[in-house]
Amino acid sequence: MSQQSALEYIRHGQTPFFRLPMVKPGIGSAEVYRGYQAAILGVPTDAGTTYQPGARMAPYHLRRTSALLGPFHPTHRVHVFEKLRAVDGGNVAAPPFSLESIRQLVQLEVGAVVEAGATPFLVGGDHSISLPALRAVAERHGELAVVHVDAHFDTSGPETWGEAFHHGTPIKHALEEGLIARGQLHQVGIRVTWKGEDEGDLSNAYDAQVYDMQRIESDGIRRVASQIREQVGNRPTYVSFDIDGVDPAYAPGTGTPVPGGLTSREAISLLRLLGGVKLVGMDLVEVAPALDHADITCHLGAQLLYEGLALQALIQ
Amino acid sequence: MSQQSALEYIRHGQTPFFRLPMVKPGIGSAEVYRGYQAAILGVPTDAGTTYQPGARMAPYHLRRTSALLGPFHPTHRVHVFEKLRAVDGGNVAAPPFSLESIRQLVQLEVGAVVEAGATPFLVGGDHSISLPALRAVAERHGELAVVHVDAHFDTSGPETWGEAFHHGTPIKHALEEGLIARGQLHQVGIRVTWKGEDEGDLSNAYDAQVYDMQRIESDGIRRVASQIREQVGNRPTYVSFDIDGVDPAYAPGTGTPVPGGLTSREAISLLRLLGGVKLVGMDLVEVAPALDHADITCHLGAQLLYEGLALQALIQ
Amino acid sequence: MSQQSALEYIRHGQTPFFRLPMVKPGIGSAEVYRGYQAAILGVPTDAGTTYQPGARMAPYHLRRTSALLGPFHPTHRVHVFEKLRAVDGGNVAAPPFSLESIRQLVQLEVGAVVEAGATPFLVGGDHSISLPALRAVAERHGELAVVHVDAHFDTSGPETWGEAFHHGTPIKHALEEGLIARGQLHQVGIRVTWKGEDEGDLSNAYDAQVYDMQRIESDGIRRVASQIREQVGNRPTYVSFDIDGVDPAYAPGTGTPVPGGLTSREAISLLRLLGGVKLVGMDLVEVAPALDHADITCHLGAQLLYEGLALQALIQ
Amino acid sequence: MSQQSALEYIRHGQTPFFRLPMVKPGIGSAEVYRGYQAAILGVPTDAGTTYQPGARMAPYHLRRTSALLGPFHPTHRVHVFEKLRAVDGGNVAAPPFSLESIRQLVQLEVGAVVEAGATPFLVGGDHSISLPALRAVAERHGELAVVHVDAHFDTSGPETWGEAFHHGTPIKHALEEGLIARGQLHQVGIRVTWKGEDEGDLSNAYDAQVYDMQRIESDGIRRVASQIREQVGNRPTYVSFDIDGVDPAYAPGTGTPVPGGLTSREAISLLRLLGGVKLVGMDLVEVAPALDHADITCHLGAQLLYEGLALQALIQ
Amino acid sequence: MSQQSALEYIRHGQTPFFRLPMVKPGIGSAEVYRGYQAAILGVPTDAGTTYQPGARMAPYHLRRTSALLGPFHPTHRVHVFEKLRAVDGGNVAAPPFSLESIRQLVQLEVGAVVEAGATPFLVGGDHSISLPALRAVAERHGELAVVHVDAHFDTSGPETWGEAFHHGTPIKHALEEGLIARGQLHQVGIRVTWKGEDEGDLSNAYDAQVYDMQRIESDGIRRVASQIREQVGNRPTYVSFDIDGVDPAYAPGTGTPVPGGLTSREAISLLRLLGGVKLVGMDLVEVAPALDHADITCHLGAQLLYEGLALQALIQ
Amino acid sequence: MSQQSALEYIRHGQTPFFRLPMVKPGIGSAEVYRGYQAAILGVPTDAGTTYQPGARMAPYHLRRTSALLGPFHPTHRVHVFEKLRAVDGGNVAAPPFSLESIRQLVQLEVGAVVEAGATPFLVGGDHSISLPALRAVAERHGELAVVHVDAHFDTSGPETWGEAFHHGTPIKHALEEGLIARGQLHQVGIRVTWKGEDEGDLSNAYDAQVYDMQRIESDGIRRVASQIREQVGNRPTYVSFDIDGVDPAYAPGTGTPVPGGLTSREAISLLRLLGGVKLVGMDLVEVAPALDHADITCHLGAQLLYEGLALQALIQ
Repeated sequence: MSQQSALEYIRHGQTPFFRLPMVKPGIGSAEVYRGYQAAILGVPTDAGTTYQPGARMAPYHLRRTSALLGPFHPTHRVHVFEKLRAVDGGNVAAPPFSLESIRQLVQLEVGAVVEAGATPFLVGGDHSISLPALRAVAERHGELAVVHVDAHFDTSGPETWGEAFHHGTPIKHALEEGLIARGQLHQVGIRVTWKGEDEGDLSNAYDAQVYDMQRIESDGIRRVASQIREQVGNRPTYVSFDIDGVDPAYAPGTGTPVPGGLTSREAISLLRLLGGVKLVGMDLVEVAPALDHADITCHLGAQLLYEGLALQALIQ
Repeated sequence: MSQQSALEYIRHGQTPFFRLPMVKPGIGSAEVYRGYQAAILGVPTDAGTTYQPGARMAPYHLRRTSALLGPFHPTHRVHVFEKLRAVDGGNVAAPPFSLESIRQLVQLEVGAVVEAGATPFLVGGDHSISLPALRAVAERHGELAVVHVDAHFDTSGPETWGEAFHHGTPIKHALEEGLIARGQLHQVGIRVTWKGEDEGDLSNAYDAQVYDMQRIESDGIRRVASQIREQVGNRPTYVSFDIDGVDPAYAPGTGTPVPGGLTSREAISLLRLLGGVKLVGMDLVEVAPALDHADITCHLGAQLLYEGLALQALIQ
Repeated sequence: MSQQSALEYIRHGQTPFFRLPMVKPGIGSAEVYRGYQAAILGVPTDAGTTYQPGARMAPYHLRRTSALLGPFHPTHRVHVFEKLRAVDGGNVAAPPFSLESIRQLVQLEVGAVVEAGATPFLVGGDHSISLPALRAVAERHGELAVVHVDAHFDTSGPETWGEAFHHGTPIKHALEEGLIARGQLHQVGIRVTWKGEDEGDLSNAYDAQVYDMQRIESDGIRRVASQIREQVGNRPTYVSFDIDGVDPAYAPGTGTPVPGGLTSREAISLLRLLGGVKLVGMDLVEVAPALDHADITCHLGAQLLYEGLALQALIQ
Repeated sequence: MSQQSALEYIRHGQTPFFRLPMVKPGIGSAEVYRGYQAAILGVPTDAGTTYQPGARMAPYHLRRTSALLGPFHPTHRVHVFEKLRAVDGGNVAAPPFSLESIRQLVQLEVGAVVEAGATPFLVGGDHSISLPALRAVAERHGELAVVHVDAHFDTSGPETWGEAFHHGTPIKHALEEGLIARGQLHQVGIRVTWKGEDEGDLSNAYDAQVYDMQRIESDGIRRVASQIREQVGNRPTYVSFDIDGVDPAYAPGTGTPVPGGLTSREAISLLRLLGGVKLVGMDLVEVAPALDHADITCHLGAQLLYEGLALQALIQ
Repeated sequence: MSQQSALEYIRHGQTPFFRLPMVKPGIGSAEVYRGYQAAILGVPTDAGTTYQPGARMAPYHLRRTSALLGPFHPTHRVHVFEKLRAVDGGNVAAPPFSLESIRQLVQLEVGAVVEAGATPFLVGGDHSISLPALRAVAERHGELAVVHVDAHFDTSGPETWGEAFHHGTPIKHALEEGLIARGQLHQVGIRVTWKGEDEGDLSNAYDAQVYDMQRIESDGIRRVASQIREQVGNRPTYVSFDIDGVDPAYAPGTGTPVPGGLTSREAISLLRLLGGVKLVGMDLVEVAPALDHADITCHLGAQLLYEGLALQALIQ
Repeated sequence: MSQQSALEYIRHGQTPFFRLPMVKPGIGSAEVYRGYQAAILGVPTDAGTTYQPGARMAPYHLRRTSALLGPFHPTHRVHVFEKLRAVDGGNVAAPPFSLESIRQLVQLEVGAVVEAGATPFLVGGDHSISLPALRAVAERHGELAVVHVDAHFDTSGPETWGEAFHHGTPIKHALEEGLIARGQLHQVGIRVTWKGEDEGDLSNAYDAQVYDMQRIESDGIRRVASQIREQVGNRPTYVSFDIDGVDPAYAPGTGTPVPGGLTSREAISLLRLLGGVKLVGMDLVEVAPALDHADITCHLGAQLLYEGLALQALIQ
């Protein structure tokens, strides 16, 4: 599956993710994804945001910054886009007004991707999109291992301002709906101060592995990544990467920044050290370009997405 | 009605609008507004936004910039806050997720304000909040004259992505619900290019006066303001001021900027030239602080709100 | 010629100019442009810049902001993209290093557009691209009338740092090469302070009409535009619009800003008042997105380009 | 008096104002200024600021932006720096901590400039520096006419937080100390809302001409400038230009912005229309670069300073 | 001690630190602080700044960002605001013009806080405010241990531009006035290049522990923090945290940035590892919001302040 | 060689690098550099840039930020500017249009510096300036050891858009021209993803030591620096420091940022740990101030340049 060359790219001025081919999705039909092994979907919504919005503009800007990445991954020594037949599936036509419609459309489209035998990569959008993605992926692959990078647990509840499904709850629902195998939720980068002393209880109740910043500080990201890699084993694994898992110095462009997070190198290393994992889906969420500076968050976001695609290329 | 002194303000670090007293609203109860002639309500939502969000942060930042304005209006020669008993009513607790709840809560709270005999001044938030405000005001005062400053008609429809009530439709619904008296919609600053040739039809059907930028260029803002003032006469009048009516040079902090708009002086003059109007409500919407620079949009927004309060002071 | 609908646009995330169809240019071959009446070409270069660079990134960002414009022009009352078969021709593959290659490639591609019977619209890039565009257009249409909006004369010479063809000289060469008919250079917005007292001599020698800001202040843009419209008459006319003709308040995103320029309204009005002109080419140059704020320069640039396309639609 | 050529400037990377020669001031000694007709002094202080500081960095950045201006003034048709022997006198070594020391040092250095027979041009710094400058100039030239451009009266008093001499009081003291001839204070651009109804009383008491924005709106800047020019006549005249007289859209880089001010064109025109005035001093104050965007305020500031120098060149 | 609920907060739009109750201070009277164990005071001044100002705006913006922190500290496992009766004491009414008045007022107000038996937490403002705070605290608690985080020694002297008490000297005076116990000054993060080889002499003369970045690099922040914790023992301890101790990547919003500083994690860890220390006062200084981006410095500042409050909660 | 004192600096407002004396270069003549041991040259060009330009403005802004550094280096315990007679040689008058002229002029001027017996320190400008600098230095000192800090190999080829000598190729040409001794190219910070699997082949072919981020992560910067120091030994060594070797969080102001780079501390440590190296030249390139925030990249750039000068001072 060939990319545009850089020259073509400069000439045409189009911006699919990573200069890949782009298809017109059939809104839930798997046909357009047939023959591909990976499909990248933009989900331009921030309807689930509780504090500063802006993530709806991320797919646009991450397409742009993704164009700078070369196809050969020097650490894994793999030519990502020769090994992996990948496609830009365009944006899920998520209406900005209705969280319920967004959930339905995301689940429908991710369902189409997995039905076609491809692995979905979602570019949010706020974190509420992870729940329908997990539903569609788990429907095909069964109970998943989930690597969840975030400053927050995303298990708050039962409701905030009357809404149960927003960007602070995808993990709660995924746990409660049985989408994640017991002991197979791996939460990395957690560091938010808590509303009350029970904030981590849900994660504990499901035997989640919580690699909070305290633990990363003492163990180091390599050891953390090795433990996750070992525990995940051969299980179908989904990576949900909230960019606010990374420190605001490296990722200022996000709506609910929390100081003291991962460095860019730790974030990249974490994904690289998962090599060989059976990746069945990934999302990158909460990038808010209006709060970014000099595109540094958007460049990092594109790199992280690329690392996920490289993981996928490794297992083809 | 005394403001906090500047010294008190510096000392306390609090930021009610215009350093006014601030009340704890009773969520729909008129009691807290009794004895006041004007109540300023923040409505921190941008759930109705179709393009770039961010207006939910405006009440916070407009409170801050409003602190710089002096109480005596040198053009009207009126001491605004001695003449007018005004209060900061805090923020309407609008949940960010549900347009319907927002409409209900805004209508409820504005209803409480008008029930107490005070005039509501809303600080959005996106433009969808004008509809419930107009409903509550019209319920008390009957069919209104509306001065609507905007780059857009805000009469699109019937639905966008399945939603009939968003920031592009408040005027449409207000017309169709009979909240605005025939011939008494005055649209100022309109200049958006159209989706189709029928984009202005609804305004025409209701005999709206459309003072688009073409007309303002040829007639001048003074003549336009005089015409509006004359046409409005003694009728209860509501001013709905979308900051994108102003040119992006003067108001970069907004989500759907359109080049070629009002200058800051035209915007201010327009309001000043409405002196004597029977103002029964006002909103200032679509200020998005994350897109602002050096607070220039927030300073202008606070000034426009102040001009509305001065109009109100004039008729006490 | 149909545009993508806004819904399709949101769904697919692609960004041709004005959501138009996009072709893969044949590098000098007219075939791809056959059947179109207008072709928009990006020219991502700033090799001709003497002060602050950055204009090479403009085609990317103007494609993005152009997506917000509606197809129906309310002042001219024309559905621009139904009346005019327009296409996004992608970017001219101008290498950033060689001014000579850039000139050759631009002339070649614009030549292909005019050979196909279409009108070229160039989106720079720096102002040096206007010379090869003028050459290709004049080759087909003969001596041109040129409406040149700029803060600078762009007639400096003979060389700067050893280079005769940079962003400060396109008009000089166009005059000297006989591409512009005598008395048919109309320079609008000129206001730069001069290196010496002869800075305006070349324009005078060719009987150029210099509508400097002094004159615009006293005559008003309407009278200026009328005079230009009248003088141009039925002659094939090329519009070269350097965004620094506009005041830095409205267009901060440019490399050599000069205070005291056109307002956004004057810039838009100028183009609108040329209605009926026989437009044979247009360029919009010197937008530097890295210096922009909240996209206000990019939104204005897209609007000005749209005004040019509307002029073209009017004469179909 | 020759400037550096642009080539020299690029080569050397130094940044005296307008690429002029630069002298090492003798701290109060007139010798270094002998033979010059104008001396530009930076005054890097913001100790007199009541709201947002930052003006201390202005001399640095205005030196940089001043390098872009050409020496020939096309409207006055004068080669400014051939006609006028001007020099950059460096910065007054004003300590940031003591308003009193700053006043002393500014008065001392401006005194040295006027003693050498040169005209001082001060680049602030905050507006408190105007008082010592006026003192030194009036000591030599007697009662002055003062053209004061500002959003504020700068006549507040008697004290703010225990300090009588800050950036809100230079005009008050200048009036009370008899530095300004009766009826010869011309205040342009005033528009701040007032603390109380007596805010304009001091200006009135001294028969100041207050050209507030209301009046500029109705009369136009040309008529205002003509009236000032006529009233000033042949009297020694000092121009005190607070950049916040200009609208925040054109001059966002200032600490106490007020919406609704002069456009850049009005500001420039005002100074141009004073041609022939007997200019004996000028200051440009309150530019705060940290709040600027893309240097637009700094470019405008340099242009306004240049207009003052051109006025000076006209009378040599 | 209950905080405002988030809903109340949203509703009221007020912004006391950490959504705590806010008192009207009696200007030096201890009464308002009675019953509280901690009082947070804003000190909006930057009169002591030698380079870029702006810290006067910090209390405003840190109040805003502090609202995002949850009350339960997950590392210390303590509910900070249940354990600790804390209050927002508003801003010390420090006039911006007089360093001496600022020192007096800060000492007076901090004196009132300690007299009431509460621990003062100051939010600057520039670093010169630490001296009067240390004086008031030492007056009650005797010679202090001081943990001083900074890029600079803050021991310069004797005078800068004639002023002995500015933001570069608080530690010098505290040492010389005997406020700090011998050997109990712990300076962390020092890395500025020196004016001369004696720049560290004063610290040495008082047996200060200088944990410069060189040492932190080799020992690690954990070992450094342990050493400090051990050396401090049970002694009354004051933490003076200059945000420029942190690297500019994490804290761009400060006036004299020095590359190569602490990471956000090191800064947070340092404070956490002081658990059990007998904290008798803290300040957080030199945050300059106008130089910040996306509030990342303000979020970090709020977190550091919170860590101090948590230390205080631990010993209740 | 004495610097200006800070007081002089404040007073005069001039900005040579590090407040050093500044000479007018003779354009290739060694005379102006006689008696100096180090000369700092600005090279204001970005003609060799392939993606975002802007580095041409770096010499201006790095002169400004360099003024904050003190002359005594506390780690090396050396008074840099007493030990080392250093001078600011102004800017190489590199025309922005011709890569060939730039190469010639840089080689000529660097040749003059080395002929005078001084060590050249270049401040770019884009990375293409390193080749002519290396040529001039190698001509005098023979085959060099080169420490090359970068995110990219800079060995691409043979041509990009028809140009062999741009900012992506200086190392390639230096290797092929034999300017670098075999095994003596030390590349630090490499992390870009590759166009193809042969991207590192050229470095390997010349036995370069590639310390990519993977290796720095596992070995630590101290060990890496020690290895380089040992391998370089007594060989004449040139340091070419591309600021994009540093992570975008620490250095956002650059045109082709790549996530996952060096921290500011690693970058500084690397240079410090080369103490005693026989430094014969250094460049600092690719700083693009328009993309910087709050000058953090410019402050870091000045610090890195200072570290190079300190290395030079150590061997005098």
